Amino acid sequence: MRAAALYLALAHHPVLNKRLEVITSSVTNLDIHDIARAARTFEVDGFLLLHPLPAQRELVMRILSYWQRGGGAAYNPDRSEAFERLHLLASLEEARAWVREASGADPLVVVTDARPYPNSIGYAEMRRRLQEPGSSYLLVFGTGWGLAPEVMAAADLVLEPIAAVGTYNHLSVRSAVAIILDRLLSDPASR
Amino acid sequence: MRAAALYLALAHHPVLNKRLEVITSSVTNLDIHDIARAARTFEVDGFLLLHPLPAQRELVMRILSYWQRGGGAAYNPDRSEAFERLHLLASLEEARAWVREASGADPLVVVTDARPYPNSIGYAEMRRRLQEPGSSYLLVFGTGWGLAPEVMAAADLVLEPIAAVGTYNHLSVRSAVAIILDRLLSDPASR
Repeated sequence: MRAAALYLALAHHPVLNKRLEVITSSVTNLDIHDIARAARTFEVDGFLLLHPLPAQRELVMRILSYWQRGGGAAYNPDRSEAFERLHLLASLEEARAWVREASGADPLVVVTDARPYPNSIGYAEMRRRLQEPGSSYLLVFGTGWGLAPEVMAAADLVLEPIAAVGTYNHLSVRSAVAIILDRLLSDPASR
Repeated sequence: MRAAALYLALAHHPVLNKRLEVITSSVTNLDIHDIARAARTFEVDGFLLLHPLPAQRELVMRILSYWQRGGGAAYNPDRSEAFERLHLLASLEEARAWVREASGADPLVVVTDARPYPNSIGYAEMRRRLQEPGSSYLLVFGTGWGLAPEVMAAADLVLEPIAAVGTYNHLSVRSAVAIILDRLLSDPASR
């Protein structure tokens, strides 16, 4: 059973494009739905969607209000429930402060990437850490081609990439979130 | 290491809607991308996208040709590689025949559902089966609110639902595919 606080963040800046330049990506509608549903299913304490542009956050607000108070809430109450844990913030700095306030502890920032890093932490070790009460973690995923090097370098912990089978490793961020939450949070006996 | 043949199918008919009526669902663009990328990453032998309507299969063909031969192929060759294992077929019956031809063995049909079923097979047992050479499996996912009861009843094996944490279990089919392929195919030591 998880005892530590765990929040998930999806960053749209600073992230890389395919030429490995630092960019701000646009919000993808299905990221919001799929990740909110996975975060609710695995009972993450909160899903923080990070975008520096107010117009993009406003767009997400409109989508959310349809599912929380508009036609979508009556059509699909499960979706409304998934979105209760979604919060819109501008940056990773805001997210850290928000989690500190919400959990009462300064969170350790855990970043994810498809590329291997030295001194990364494995899934068994991260599961063990999440069973210790009192600490707080912010698990960060990047859109586009992944989080910018400055975010990776400033993190407290780097989670090992999802080692799949061969050398091809191009999962969507939606798939990566689902797999990582399953590895960290579902009952090992049921897997 | 997997020794059995393993194919993945995404069915759009017969599936359920939220009122549990049997329907034919429309193709969702990101299902094609996310599931093809996951199938390639976990080295599934083929991803069979099943739709009874020729117009929907034609739409998918046009999307694929952009990524395989059009502008998308130059922009993102990884995506083109993911789509090499995608095949369009009309029905589950066609999929069985196709897998029989491709793998040389009549496949056992393994169905998935978010609901629990009696006599379902666990992940450890399914991993063990995939290590036995000579057999062939067709792992079937339903869009919408899941596969119709007739498909569940006719299957050779029912895979246990993804037991997450609590009672809320509303993952997208994209997330469910990612988690199930990870549970069945990634190296347990790396998880």
